[in-house]
Amino acid sequence: MIKESIIVDLQRIVGKENVFTSPECLKTYSYDGTTTWTHKPDVVIFPLNTKALSQVMKLSNREKIAVTPRGGGTNVSGGSIPISGGIVLCLSKMDRITKIDKENMMATVEAGVVLQDLVLELAKEGLFFPPDPQSYYGATIGGIIAENAGGPSCLKYGVTKQYVLGMEVILPTGEIINLGGRTLNNVIGYDLLHIIISSEGTLGVVTRADLRLMLLPPARKTVMAVYGDAVIAGENVSRVLEAGVIPTKIEYIDNWVINKIEETMPFGLPRDADAVLLFETDGASEAVERETEIIVEVARKHGAKEVRIAESINEANQFWMARRVGASAIYRDTKTVLVEDVTVPRGNLPVLIKRCKELAKKYNLEIVALGHAGDGNLHPAILTDITDVNHYQKATEAMDEIFQAAVEFGGVISGEHGIGLEKQKFLMKTIDPTVLTIMKKIKTLLDPNNIMNPEKIWSESDKPPR
Amino acid sequence: MIKESIIVDLQRIVGKENVFTSPECLKTYSYDGTTTWTHKPDVVIFPLNTKALSQVMKLSNREKIAVTPRGGGTNVSGGSIPISGGIVLCLSKMDRITKIDKENMMATVEAGVVLQDLVLELAKEGLFFPPDPQSYYGATIGGIIAENAGGPSCLKYGVTKQYVLGMEVILPTGEIINLGGRTLNNVIGYDLLHIIISSEGTLGVVTRADLRLMLLPPARKTVMAVYGDAVIAGENVSRVLEAGVIPTKIEYIDNWVINKIEETMPFGLPRDADAVLLFETDGASEAVERETEIIVEVARKHGAKEVRIAESINEANQFWMARRVGASAIYRDTKTVLVEDVTVPRGNLPVLIKRCKELAKKYNLEIVALGHAGDGNLHPAILTDITDVNHYQKATEAMDEIFQAAVEFGGVISGEHGIGLEKQKFLMKTIDPTVLTIMKKIKTLLDPNNIMNPEKIWSESDKPPR
Repeated sequence: MIKESIIVDLQRIVGKENVFTSPECLKTYSYDGTTTWTHKPDVVIFPLNTKALSQVMKLSNREKIAVTPRGGGTNVSGGSIPISGGIVLCLSKMDRITKIDKENMMATVEAGVVLQDLVLELAKEGLFFPPDPQSYYGATIGGIIAENAGGPSCLKYGVTKQYVLGMEVILPTGEIINLGGRTLNNVIGYDLLHIIISSEGTLGVVTRADLRLMLLPPARKTVMAVYGDAVIAGENVSRVLEAGVIPTKIEYIDNWVINKIEETMPFGLPRDADAVLLFETDGASEAVERETEIIVEVARKHGAKEVRIAESINEANQFWMARRVGASAIYRDTKTVLVEDVTVPRGNLPVLIKRCKELAKKYNLEIVALGHAGDGNLHPAILTDITDVNHYQKATEAMDEIFQAAVEFGGVISGEHGIGLEKQKFLMKTIDPTVLTIMKKIKTLLDPNNIMNPEKIWSESDKPPR
Repeated sequence: MIKESIIVDLQRIVGKENVFTSPECLKTYSYDGTTTWTHKPDVVIFPLNTKALSQVMKLSNREKIAVTPRGGGTNVSGGSIPISGGIVLCLSKMDRITKIDKENMMATVEAGVVLQDLVLELAKEGLFFPPDPQSYYGATIGGIIAENAGGPSCLKYGVTKQYVLGMEVILPTGEIINLGGRTLNNVIGYDLLHIIISSEGTLGVVTRADLRLMLLPPARKTVMAVYGDAVIAGENVSRVLEAGVIPTKIEYIDNWVINKIEETMPFGLPRDADAVLLFETDGASEAVERETEIIVEVARKHGAKEVRIAESINEANQFWMARRVGASAIYRDTKTVLVEDVTVPRGNLPVLIKRCKELAKKYNLEIVALGHAGDGNLHPAILTDITDVNHYQKATEAMDEIFQAAVEFGGVISGEHGIGLEKQKFLMKTIDPTVLTIMKKIKTLLDPNNIMNPEKIWSESDKPPR
């Protein structure tokens, strides 16, 4: 428990109205998008500026208080759960879009800006920020950077790290540093920017980011291909890319998720399909038309039962809305969902899909899946109940086998969700000990008192949670 | 000087035929593409495999011998000059393209593969690796990664770091580690891959890389726009991008360079132009046609005196060959060339061009320029003679002012060439001391005996060379 005098200090630094200790508030900030962990902080604070935030870090470092930074709390690996108590540092009130610079296709934003708000503002200027995690309605830029978020559009546009040019970061010791810059090319010493990106809030607090933007494409088109066999859907991904088209998105939704979406909100998806793929292309209208033709041709030739081209923007939006509903529909009737984030070279997606189906049978479990098929990034979800010890045990064993399969097929255990708490056990099985040692030394170098989101990625006790 | 017994050890490890100590050889490996520095190593070795290389590093670490890794030696900031003597570790014999995986659009290559060789092999499979430094005919993948090389195509495709998925690295202590993987999305702990990329060979030796590739676009088109005023050329860059086109390349060549190219090899460039811009677009042919139309329209509307569309692949190749000749023509009749690599947000390119012109007048110097205008990355070159003390002094003062201008205009002192030896003095003036301290600690963490390309990026004596 934090001493009362610390609470008073925090009130002085960030303002009394931005410090919360009520049981309701502590409960509210005890979890994130993960359904397996929860832990209350001692206090929740909302700093309004960099200077105050720096003072909070200095105080915490001196007093050795754990600090868990967070924004929207949409994390799905436990990264924003204050597992060691202490301070939850919520960036949500630092939410200004400071500058949109159309000429240089850049924006400067505070870390608490919600992605959806940024997207809407940028659209007014004909610009967009490509990373599009499905949690974009709540996820903040700080969290997106901390997790190096992806999303459907990453197939064509790449992940968050490719769109961060510069950042202001508060180190665990309270120093304020600026990394990167406002230029596309930048080679001045070691790339510390990228050490902070995807460090899951364990090395410092991002307070400001200079983002690289793209021009909104003049045209886009959506195609849904329907398959009687999910493995063939998986194979179709590589066939389309080999035909010379790199769609903006190729998303995979399996039969279970299709049906759960239709129960939640009927979109007219084919409930008897074993899986569907949703394709989107964007760019100059002539190119989009041609690429759409190729996608349709390839899908028909290689085993799709049916191919639907969205005839209007409205219809396309319906397809994509369905995909988004899918991400939350999984949680609808299930107590505990173990959502995985395995990623394999895309040519191995069919074998990964097949293995998941086999494991579902072997363990007699519901293992459902959707994902960014174009990137080989699948999100199999195991439906379980953490209070049913036997069932949960079975679920974690199946999860373990999925991770093993990903590694066997040349992939990794996390593509875009991070390790957080939930994937530590599996990280420890797959990481090179020398590499882990270097990571730990970098952590100690920047956070000597281990106050910054402690126990995340790995546990200092070397006993990963659960 | 290295002890004779060490030479014998090296001969045992990498084979007698791969160890060189003749004066001719030491002289040959005493310089790189930089014209201002030279220093002889004690020995030059060509390891043939990772295991031998690891043993070399263990020996060097134990004996505290400086090791300078290099490939083609095309570096232009002094990064591959063995300024502390010791061992030059030349990767050129580790030059196998191990795998080209078309389905997953990846290649696995050894560090000594020359970029041009890779490009030719990939083209057979309809693939390409986007980074295209002008030294591609000699530069090796290891060096390209160490410097995070760019090139004209980076405007559309981004720099090297966006195309490295995984790497094998030999640490200065001899341990062999694997970083990243073979997937596009990958979030498993700190991004050590990016700490090695652009570390200029000071943190380890890259021996193998898993590269992300792109499909060769079906069509491409080149446009040359001719300007009576170089500043207007600079302004045209942003006008084209604002019109919704992101060309593959926008290259800038000034009057002096145009004339030097024509003297070297006549291409029919407009010798009276103050500057030209070369544009290339690529992609689906319909999109390429439309984008070319827009570029021509915008250039005509915004002050180009003349716009030429390359009517054939042959003519387009001539334009690009001229650009490449430009990169070396600068050195033709000049003893010493200080080539800069300043990068500004592209909207500030016109003021940077203007400032360079003013500085040329102020110092009565020839300051000539070409560069990747689309990225705001300009390579002003100051023509001087290092043996003429007064002239060289004047040149370095002008260079200093160009760096100051870049920073004043929101940019950085190096976009793609790295700091090496040549830019240390200027790095020290612009870098945040806290950031430098972190970099130094990371160096010590990975290279406790400071044997790996010592005195590069910064000098341990804190006295940057010259």
